[in-house]
Amino acid sequence: MKLYELVLDHGRSVSPFVWRAKMALAHKGFTPERIAIGYGDKDQLAFSGQDRVPVLVDGDVTVSDSWRIACYLEDCYPDRPSLFGGDVGRALARVFNHWCDSQQLRTLFMLCCAPTFDLVPAGDQPYYRQSRFEWTGMSIEQIREAGNPKAVRASMEPIRLALTEQPFLAGAAPAYADYCAFGALMWARVSTGRVLEDGDPVEDWRQRMLDLFDGFARKAACAERD
Amino acid sequence: MKLYELVLDHGRSVSPFVWRAKMALAHKGFTPERIAIGYGDKDQLAFSGQDRVPVLVDGDVTVSDSWRIACYLEDCYPDRPSLFGGDVGRALARVFNHWCDSQQLRTLFMLCCAPTFDLVPAGDQPYYRQSRFEWTGMSIEQIREAGNPKAVRASMEPIRLALTEQPFLAGAAPAYADYCAFGALMWARVSTGRVLEDGDPVEDWRQRMLDLFDGFARKAACAERD
Repeated sequence: MKLYELVLDHGRSVSPFVWRAKMALAHKGFTPERIAIGYGDKDQLAFSGQDRVPVLVDGDVTVSDSWRIACYLEDCYPDRPSLFGGDVGRALARVFNHWCDSQQLRTLFMLCCAPTFDLVPAGDQPYYRQSRFEWTGMSIEQIREAGNPKAVRASMEPIRLALTEQPFLAGAAPAYADYCAFGALMWARVSTGRVLEDGDPVEDWRQRMLDLFDGFARKAACAERD
Repeated sequence: MKLYELVLDHGRSVSPFVWRAKMALAHKGFTPERIAIGYGDKDQLAFSGQDRVPVLVDGDVTVSDSWRIACYLEDCYPDRPSLFGGDVGRALARVFNHWCDSQQLRTLFMLCCAPTFDLVPAGDQPYYRQSRFEWTGMSIEQIREAGNPKAVRASMEPIRLALTEQPFLAGAAPAYADYCAFGALMWARVSTGRVLEDGDPVEDWRQRMLDLFDGFARKAACAERD
């Protein structure tokens, strides 16, 4: 297996969507070859029929999009630990995935976008600056001013409430919904630093997630000092 | 079985939490005796050790709180249709339940609070007015001004995205997560009227939910004109 991921300066793997895929692969017991690309290397993804990471290559099969990669792994490797725990679990993980994308990541974007810019190689900075302006109508400098850790912490309220009652979002053990929400927090860890406060049940859960798979995520190059 | 529910003027059953319990009971094939109480009748719930609806009485067992009622039904009646589809489905339904409470219901509250006040019998209006002031710092008249259907529709974005991809939140068939989110929309239907617009995938799903169990929810006394 090969996994294409976005890697910026100092070996920083910033994409929350790539982190979802990396954790899902680890959950299934796979350690794919990781192929680092930058914003200027999107032509290397042309074989996948689109230009975004993550892209998984498994023998003859190419799968892009983090959700489709999770479904591919679950459907093709059903004898390995389940990512969804059944059909209802899969459907609710999809609902949760959309919550992450539309609410959790939206607030985190304002905090992590400018620090991520600082990790973009100089040659790719004009692309990054322009694309983020098209999304937001704001310059990198304006986005940097707008970043608000309190808003990020507030956006986590639904998972905070659940994590006071159960150790992982998927219950007694982590599964794909955990990797969804954790991917966003890895973007913060890798690009920006610590966002959550001591004593926050979301922070306690994040520490448990960092410990999974022999500290797989904890070992990644990052901005945060443990 | 008996289910205690809040019923206001014109037979309006407004509580989103009671609607969760009623749909969960219907899903399991139960048709409990329904006992209507008003805000002034909370002493009738003293036997349950607390003063909020829904309260389910099943023989010698009394269960309050909509989430605990769902878990009770699932655990005690495992041979009937499942509300959760397994342990991961249960854990993710709990996460989703918290999303409903902290995000969906919070915006809907501002829209439905004042129309609900209009259904409260005169003798209970001072209690309702005072308790809502304590929650919000606002009078009923100020809350009425602040109600914003657009904000309610925007708050539904995570489920809207999922419902473009699957017919129910729980997948091919409805389960407890559907009843959670639908309970909030029943509060709107019963107290206020229609909130969602034609062509919205959430509205199409709501119509499917209204049809379940031989139109059980559709038949309830309501403010909305179909």
